[in-house]
Amino acid sequence: MTLVPAADPAAARASFRAGLAVPSSGWAPGHTQANLVVLPRDWAWDMLLFGQRNPQPVPLLDVTDAGSYRTVLAPDADLRTDLPRYRVWRDGELVDEPTDVADLWTDDLVAFLIGCSFSFETALLDAGVPVRNIEQGRNVSMYRTNRECRPAGRLSGPLVVSMRPVPGHLVATAVQVTARMPAVHGAPVHVGSPAALGIADLARPDFGDPVESAAGDVPVFWACGVTPQAALMASRPPFAITHAPGHMFVTDVPDAVYRQP
Amino acid sequence: MTLVPAADPAAARASFRAGLAVPSSGWAPGHTQANLVVLPRDWAWDMLLFGQRNPQPVPLLDVTDAGSYRTVLAPDADLRTDLPRYRVWRDGELVDEPTDVADLWTDDLVAFLIGCSFSFETALLDAGVPVRNIEQGRNVSMYRTNRECRPAGRLSGPLVVSMRPVPGHLVATAVQVTARMPAVHGAPVHVGSPAALGIADLARPDFGDPVESAAGDVPVFWACGVTPQAALMASRPPFAITHAPGHMFVTDVPDAVYRQP
Repeated sequence: MTLVPAADPAAARASFRAGLAVPSSGWAPGHTQANLVVLPRDWAWDMLLFGQRNPQPVPLLDVTDAGSYRTVLAPDADLRTDLPRYRVWRDGELVDEPTDVADLWTDDLVAFLIGCSFSFETALLDAGVPVRNIEQGRNVSMYRTNRECRPAGRLSGPLVVSMRPVPGHLVATAVQVTARMPAVHGAPVHVGSPAALGIADLARPDFGDPVESAAGDVPVFWACGVTPQAALMASRPPFAITHAPGHMFVTDVPDAVYRQP
Repeated sequence: MTLVPAADPAAARASFRAGLAVPSSGWAPGHTQANLVVLPRDWAWDMLLFGQRNPQPVPLLDVTDAGSYRTVLAPDADLRTDLPRYRVWRDGELVDEPTDVADLWTDDLVAFLIGCSFSFETALLDAGVPVRNIEQGRNVSMYRTNRECRPAGRLSGPLVVSMRPVPGHLVATAVQVTARMPAVHGAPVHVGSPAALGIADLARPDFGDPVESAAGDVPVFWACGVTPQAALMASRPPFAITHAPGHMFVTDVPDAVYRQP
């Protein structure tokens, strides 16, 4: 039996709730997907301030009340069960990758839903900009940079970027399209030189897969939603839950809501 | 001797620090001015979340570390002395309007700098849209509405809007110009009908001055930075400091930084 991604967000979440653990790319196309970070109340101030101070890598789409597993981005969803796969962190170390975190959820937890570049990839394709990682069926390449985020309380860490090779004559289009979507990372943070960001070898990403460039492509770098996971690794809160890379939260919100005029 | 507003932000702040207590409109033109809200650490989570959940009325430009009176928006400034006039609130009641709050500042306080419509008024004028309150030398008209903000912890209250009469053929221009400036309240929240917002009489604003319309003008309503002051009045934290209406914090940041492509 071939697995067909659900077109409807609620149906997608129901599949993941039932235990299906696959990357969410291609599910409920046209609907915004979100990164998830869950932290104890004691660390929530630091995370909320980290997002406020670093809106390009950490564009906050919603923040829950302590203990709540509901979000305005999908009122019927349950954040404890509806992602395809989670990561559980203790003292900054990855300790588990379950498909459900209902047994770990307490009244002390605050959930942060963070914009994801899947939204702007759709917009790039709509504008005629090829997206090489999609063409090649790979996760996007992501790199730690030599740029530090602005710290917030106990949270600090490097800016993480995603890289997409873009044909030189379409770089301006890619900038314009993504600049209109600040809630999903916005315009690129750098175009052209990996070395300027402290990236030694594009073929060896820190997260995701290597993606091949075509002749005439230029590397374009966007702030990446993995940045808060890098901050968790660097800052070591006692407990955290995140989504597993590529296994995002599917919201009910159309991508178009986050496109500005 | 005629008082001439300083063109330079640092010079403007120096005048206010020296005790000059005048509205800041027209000072350091082209530089962003900001609303100020200062709250004890215990209430800072509620305020930060209130801003995250209500970005149109409460666009957060910077949030300080507890105890700090410094901001990235003007590294040389002192938030305790550099505004022309402050308001001091206890249990939601206005108790004082000093020109300096150095003696009230403690290590427990967190300051929130919030975008201000002065920035988009400049952009409207640049685009040929008349701004009646400036023409008439009055503070803008502001109204409590029947729309509730999305609550955050203990903070809740009504959306407050500012109203500017705009000639009918320029409403589209006004929408486009302000939509590009989400950090200073962005696009209008309503055009045309005061009654739809629960506003009984445009001639009797809740804050600011009445502003007269010209023939053919349409009332246009924008989310307003007085919204957090209304929330303080409704939610009654034990202590708060804000700017006095019209007596804003002058930053070093050019308005253009907050204009999107």
